[in-house]
Amino acid sequence: MRGGIVPKEVQHKLFDEGWAEVGYDLCFDCIEGRSSLITKPPIKSHLEQIAKFFGGDVAEHTFGCRASQFAVMKGVNDVAEDQKRKKIVIGDPNSHYSTSIAAEMCGLKIVEPPHTGYPEYRVTPDAIKDKIAEVGKPALVAVTHADPYFGNIAPLKEIGEICYDKEIPFMINAAYTGGVIPINMKELKADFLTLSAHKSMASIGPLGYLVTTYEWNKDTFALSKITPDWTGRAFGKKIPNIFGCSIGSLPLVSSVLSFPEVKRRVKKWPSWEKKINTFIDDVEDLGDIMLLGERPHAHHLLHFETPDFWNISKHHKRRGFFLAEEMLKRGIVGLHKGLSKHVKLSIYGLTDKEIKQVIDALSEISNMKTAIKKKN
Amino acid sequence: MRGGIVPKEVQHKLFDEGWAEVGYDLCFDCIEGRSSLITKPPIKSHLEQIAKFFGGDVAEHTFGCRASQFAVMKGVNDVAEDQKRKKIVIGDPNSHYSTSIAAEMCGLKIVEPPHTGYPEYRVTPDAIKDKIAEVGKPALVAVTHADPYFGNIAPLKEIGEICYDKEIPFMINAAYTGGVIPINMKELKADFLTLSAHKSMASIGPLGYLVTTYEWNKDTFALSKITPDWTGRAFGKKIPNIFGCSIGSLPLVSSVLSFPEVKRRVKKWPSWEKKINTFIDDVEDLGDIMLLGERPHAHHLLHFETPDFWNISKHHKRRGFFLAEEMLKRGIVGLHKGLSKHVKLSIYGLTDKEIKQVIDALSEISNMKTAIKKKN
Repeated sequence: MRGGIVPKEVQHKLFDEGWAEVGYDLCFDCIEGRSSLITKPPIKSHLEQIAKFFGGDVAEHTFGCRASQFAVMKGVNDVAEDQKRKKIVIGDPNSHYSTSIAAEMCGLKIVEPPHTGYPEYRVTPDAIKDKIAEVGKPALVAVTHADPYFGNIAPLKEIGEICYDKEIPFMINAAYTGGVIPINMKELKADFLTLSAHKSMASIGPLGYLVTTYEWNKDTFALSKITPDWTGRAFGKKIPNIFGCSIGSLPLVSSVLSFPEVKRRVKKWPSWEKKINTFIDDVEDLGDIMLLGERPHAHHLLHFETPDFWNISKHHKRRGFFLAEEMLKRGIVGLHKGLSKHVKLSIYGLTDKEIKQVIDALSEISNMKTAIKKKN
Repeated sequence: MRGGIVPKEVQHKLFDEGWAEVGYDLCFDCIEGRSSLITKPPIKSHLEQIAKFFGGDVAEHTFGCRASQFAVMKGVNDVAEDQKRKKIVIGDPNSHYSTSIAAEMCGLKIVEPPHTGYPEYRVTPDAIKDKIAEVGKPALVAVTHADPYFGNIAPLKEIGEICYDKEIPFMINAAYTGGVIPINMKELKADFLTLSAHKSMASIGPLGYLVTTYEWNKDTFALSKITPDWTGRAFGKKIPNIFGCSIGSLPLVSSVLSFPEVKRRVKKWPSWEKKINTFIDDVEDLGDIMLLGERPHAHHLLHFETPDFWNISKHHKRRGFFLAEEMLKRGIVGLHKGLSKHVKLSIYGLTDKEIKQVIDALSEISNMKTAIKKKN
C-alpha cells in the first residue's frame, strides 16, 4: 500500500487539469489507434522511459500487474508447442494469487518448488533447479521479486542464470518492488517484468506495466490478425494480449505525472533498507514479537508473528479486531482488520517521527498484556 | 464521450474524500477476497443494483467493456464443444473493434452479416438469421446496441427472439447506450449485457460491467479451480474470467458515486431523442451536410457526411485540421482531429444554449465556403 500512495501534487494536477472530467480523455488524442502510441501527451516516450528505467526494451501499459502476467502467459503459451515447452508454469510458492489465476486463464498448470519453511520461507535457486529437472522444460518460470506474504527478495540473479542456461522464459513479478527498489531486468536475465503502478509506482489503479525484450516483443505484444469476414476490417495496431489497447485513462495520466518522483525515490532505497532493519530490531525488542521472512530484511513489507497480541485478543471484547482498531485510535491506518496473531505492515515513505509513532503505538498495545495479567 | 463526463460533485468527492490518495483503496476493505463482495463501502449491493437496473440477475465490474466481452466469450467458448456450438462469433458489421479483439483473444472466429449499406447502414434481423443458417450454431451472437460508427440502434428484440428460438447465447454490447438509454436485457432475451462505465455511465476509466443471467453465471463467472501443487493453495472466491478480481480502485468508486445521477438521466432519454432529431434537421439545413445512419435517429452519436467542409479543407492552409480547430476556437471540443469529410459529434447533456452554439459554429464554418468561392 505505501508504495502506491499518490503524491499530493499529482492528485491536484489530475483534478485541476481536468483529467477526472472525462475518465478516458486520452482516447481523444489518439491518432494511431493504440494508447501506447500517443505522442501528445507523451505516452509513447513515457513507455520508452519505463522500459529503459527497468532495463528492458519494450513496455506497454496494462490494466494491472495481473493483466501483465496474463499477457506474458498468453504469449509463452502460444509458442509453447513450437518451442517444445510443456504447458506448465513453475511459480514460486510465495507468489501472489494473480500469478495462479493468470495461468488458469491461459490453461496452464502451475507447479511450485518448496520454500525453506518457518521462519524464513525462502525460495532457493536449487529448489527451482530441482523442479525443472522434475517436470521438464516449462512454458515459463515465474518468480515474485518480493513476495506478498513475507517481503522476501527472491534469488533472481541465480534463477535468471538457470533459466538462461536452459532456455526457459523467465518472468519476474515486481508488483511489490518495481518503483521502490532498483531493478535491471537484463542484469537479472529476465525476459519479462510485470509491474503494478498502483501498488508500487505511486499511481491510481487499475494500472500495470509489462516490460519485455526485443526477442519476446513479437510474441507477447503480437499485433491483431483477426479479420471479420464481411467488412474485412483489420486492426493491425491493436495488441490482443492487452485487449487491443489498454485505454488511455486517468490512472495512466497519474502514472506519467508520478514517474519523476518514482525515479527519485528508487535511488534512495539503500537508506530505507537501513531504516527498515532498525525498525525491525526496535519492534522485536517490545516483547514476544518476531519478524517472519529473511533477515536482514530487504523489502518494506514486514510480517511479524505476534503471540502477545493474540493473547490480548482472547481477553479483549473486540477480539481480533482490537489491534487494527487500537492502531487506528493512534492514527495508524492500513492494518488488516480482524487479525492479531500476525501483523503485516510497512513504514515505507513515513517520516522518522511517524516511524517512532508506529513503534510507540505497538509498545502501548503490547503493554495491554500487563493489564490483562494483573486482571486475571 | 458525452456519456462519460463525470459530474463535478463526483470529481470533488473523489478528491476530498481521499479516494485518489491510494488508487486501490478498496482492497483494504476487502475481507471476502474479491472486490465485488465488499459490503463496506457497498460494492456488493451496488453490483446488485446494476444487475437489476439493466434487467439482469448478476453483475461484476471489469476493466472495461472490452474485458466484459472477453469474459463473455471465454465463458461461451469453454462450453461451446459440450453444447455443440461452433467456435464462431456472429458479430454485427458495425461492431467496435474490441468485439473482434475479444474473439481473437479466445481463439474464436468472427463472421458478420451484411448491413444495408449507404446511407443507413442498418443491421437487419434477417441478415442475422441468414448468417446463422449459413454457418450453423455459433458460440455467440454479439450485437452492438448502438454502434460506434453511425449510432444506429440494432433490432435487438427481433435478434433476441431468433437466438432464443435457436438456443444461441446472445450478447448485447451496450457500451454506447447503457447509462444513457433505458435497457432491459430480459425483455430483449439477452444472456449478456456488456457496459462501459467510462463511456456511458459517467465514470472514470477504465471500468466496465458485465451483467448476465443466473443460467450463465456459473460459466461466465466460474470460480477459480487452480491449485498450485506444493502449497496446495486454492482461490475459491476468485473469478478467472475477470482476472480473479478486477480490483477495487478509484474508477469503481466514481461509478458508485455517479450511479444515482445515471439512473435519473436514463429516465429523461425520450426528451433527448426529440432534441437530437431537431438538431439533425437544423444541421442539415445549413447546406451540403447529411446525417448517415438511421432516421429518425435514436442515439446521440451523430455521423454527418460533410462535403462542404471537405471542399473548404482543400483550400485551407490547415487542411483537414481546420474543422476541429475552428470548432475549438468557438469553444467546442471533442471533434476528431484531422477529419473534415465526415463529422462525428454528440450534443448529449448540453444545455439548449450550448446546442445553439454548436449549430451557430457549424453555420459559421459552413459559410467559409462562400468566402472561398469569391476568392476563386
